[in-house]
Amino acid sequence: MFDFSLQAVDGAARAGTFTTPHGAVKTPAFMPVGTRATVKGVSREQLAELSPQVVLANTYHLYLAPGADVVEKLGGLHGFAAVDFPMLTDSGGFQVFSLGASGGGESKGYKNKESLVKITEDGVEFRSHLDGSKHFFSPESAMETQAKLGADIVMAFDECAPGDSDKRYARRAMERTHRWAERSLARHNELQIERVAAGKHPQAMFPIVQGVVYDDLRAESAKFMAALDVPGVAVGGLSVGESKEDMYRVMDVVAPLLPVQKPRYVMGIGRPEDLVEAVARGFDLFDCVLPTRLGRHGSVFTSAGTLQLARAEFRASDGRIPVVPELETKVSRTYSLGYLRHLVTTDEMLGSTLLSLHNLEFLIKLCEGARKAVLEGRHAAYLAAFWRARGGRP
Amino acid sequence: MFDFSLQAVDGAARAGTFTTPHGAVKTPAFMPVGTRATVKGVSREQLAELSPQVVLANTYHLYLAPGADVVEKLGGLHGFAAVDFPMLTDSGGFQVFSLGASGGGESKGYKNKESLVKITEDGVEFRSHLDGSKHFFSPESAMETQAKLGADIVMAFDECAPGDSDKRYARRAMERTHRWAERSLARHNELQIERVAAGKHPQAMFPIVQGVVYDDLRAESAKFMAALDVPGVAVGGLSVGESKEDMYRVMDVVAPLLPVQKPRYVMGIGRPEDLVEAVARGFDLFDCVLPTRLGRHGSVFTSAGTLQLARAEFRASDGRIPVVPELETKVSRTYSLGYLRHLVTTDEMLGSTLLSLHNLEFLIKLCEGARKAVLEGRHAAYLAAFWRARGGRP
Repeated sequence: MFDFSLQAVDGAARAGTFTTPHGAVKTPAFMPVGTRATVKGVSREQLAELSPQVVLANTYHLYLAPGADVVEKLGGLHGFAAVDFPMLTDSGGFQVFSLGASGGGESKGYKNKESLVKITEDGVEFRSHLDGSKHFFSPESAMETQAKLGADIVMAFDECAPGDSDKRYARRAMERTHRWAERSLARHNELQIERVAAGKHPQAMFPIVQGVVYDDLRAESAKFMAALDVPGVAVGGLSVGESKEDMYRVMDVVAPLLPVQKPRYVMGIGRPEDLVEAVARGFDLFDCVLPTRLGRHGSVFTSAGTLQLARAEFRASDGRIPVVPELETKVSRTYSLGYLRHLVTTDEMLGSTLLSLHNLEFLIKLCEGARKAVLEGRHAAYLAAFWRARGGRP
Repeated sequence: MFDFSLQAVDGAARAGTFTTPHGAVKTPAFMPVGTRATVKGVSREQLAELSPQVVLANTYHLYLAPGADVVEKLGGLHGFAAVDFPMLTDSGGFQVFSLGASGGGESKGYKNKESLVKITEDGVEFRSHLDGSKHFFSPESAMETQAKLGADIVMAFDECAPGDSDKRYARRAMERTHRWAERSLARHNELQIERVAAGKHPQAMFPIVQGVVYDDLRAESAKFMAALDVPGVAVGGLSVGESKEDMYRVMDVVAPLLPVQKPRYVMGIGRPEDLVEAVARGFDLFDCVLPTRLGRHGSVFTSAGTLQLARAEFRASDGRIPVVPELETKVSRTYSLGYLRHLVTTDEMLGSTLLSLHNLEFLIKLCEGARKAVLEGRHAAYLAAFWRARGGRP
């Protein structure tokens, strides 16, 4: 279980297969996010049609509602949501910092100050964004919660420092993240023994490289996480406000330092250009709420960029969402721009659903296409064609 | 085309088949409502799984947005929404009175006064509930709009007087509805010649019996509509605030006066008990927004009545929506009450979708069960079993 085999490498880009209790994960892969054990606006059958390799859920949200005990009682995430995809939960760390701090009415958001969410060596005290109630996550409790949720892949508890953190703070947060990764892994390994004894499937834990935009910190963090006995490694703290230049440079720094024979997951990226550039740098797994969030706001990915469908010019258009043939989706094949615009402008739920499905399928196919290109030794051409459809690399 | 054949009659209840350009409609049947050319929260594939005999759309809403010309250009309703179910449009009359009057900021709702929506012999002037703009529907224009929308079944333009109208007003509205039915039919017949010449499928027009809760008016209206040369007849102005006793008595009065060999459609009813009682009185077709509206508000039909799923007792429940085996739905088989409650209480779109699907499937199966009972000569037992599950007839 949790073997990773590489089928091909083309430049730095890779095509691999990761084995999980709920099936093989073919990489590169974009993983749809189902925050509260549902990909927003998308049913399990609609999701299954997209053939997602992995589906995410968020520990922070499920911890608050309905509670990890409830999810566990109702069969873990797979039983709860009645799905059989490979699943992944984050540790709750990112949400504690990005959502948890602003919920109590007193704290005004995580501003790189430990005083707002109370960060101690032991863990993080935060307030629920729902009702302001106080809660505490530690590396150990985050792993316990994730063991109850029962995903195939779980994440170490980390501190995601803001993208504009100064270097002094970035180092402190990184070093704490390293200590927390070791504590997460220790507790995770104990929990796996309990899970197996209870007849439950095992889970894989991925630690998370941090270090904000500082190359030396990122290198140090990558080497630290690469040395842990885990089946995969993630990179966090990207797409959190830093420039694209910083994001891609961090990827350039980190990728060569990660084990070749483990899947590499860049957390929280979902812009098409970021996916293809990350694949080109040797990363394998990605997730983001962007495709569903854009979909709920009336925007779709196209081969030329993002398009807002509410525009008046689409009112009577029998055209389709403009995508190259390889990125055609069921939605782009089935519906006119006129119908999609009608659903968007009249605020019909189906508009959110169809646009979310299109955006998810677009990203999933983008990664499938990259995989195929790697297998056929033409990844450079694939990347060049992507940018050509965009009108050139910026 | 538009033949209606009866397969069986059991007491007053009937099992029939109505032929339309998009397939045969097996009755009795509940018809889901897709107001703006989408059943709220439900995709075409999810809808197809429910095997709906007919799907509705609302002329008033589509006239305002995106406009009948746009729908026509994009292939009529079937092309626009990319569906091939038999479809039905209402005439817009009901919405003009129930929605149109309150949109202008000046008028305070249709209160049985012709001064709010301006009703003349020619037609109705109303304001858009979206932007307050003024519009005018006549029997002729309503049929022209419906010809552009291109449903299989279209409805005559009528005046749906409020359920508390006095008899004097009820008679005036009814007589106007009779004159409008004749004008609707004349224009409809002209439009059908144009449609056929243009290679488009023909449409059937149903006139609408009115008369509020006054038995003599209802009888007079039923006889008038029964004499028209049309393939089916509808009953309007029910479930608009009158008592159940009044509703069922009006059905008792009207049904025996309608042609045996034409389908009979009661507009706007969707409570399970109203459907089974209407079937028992010899009606064949029904529509209502209730199943999807209840679904969006967290409520489901059960065999014992309506159930609100947000209740705290369902938080960790691995039980299912309680229905008798014949009324099990895909949703009731697949999801725990705990998961459904989680979706409802966290306001996830999927909650609205799943509960809407359950409620629609429940009503569709209720009618399918009634049809089967009629075919097998045990409709009285079917009706008795329905009420037994409810704990007795009120």
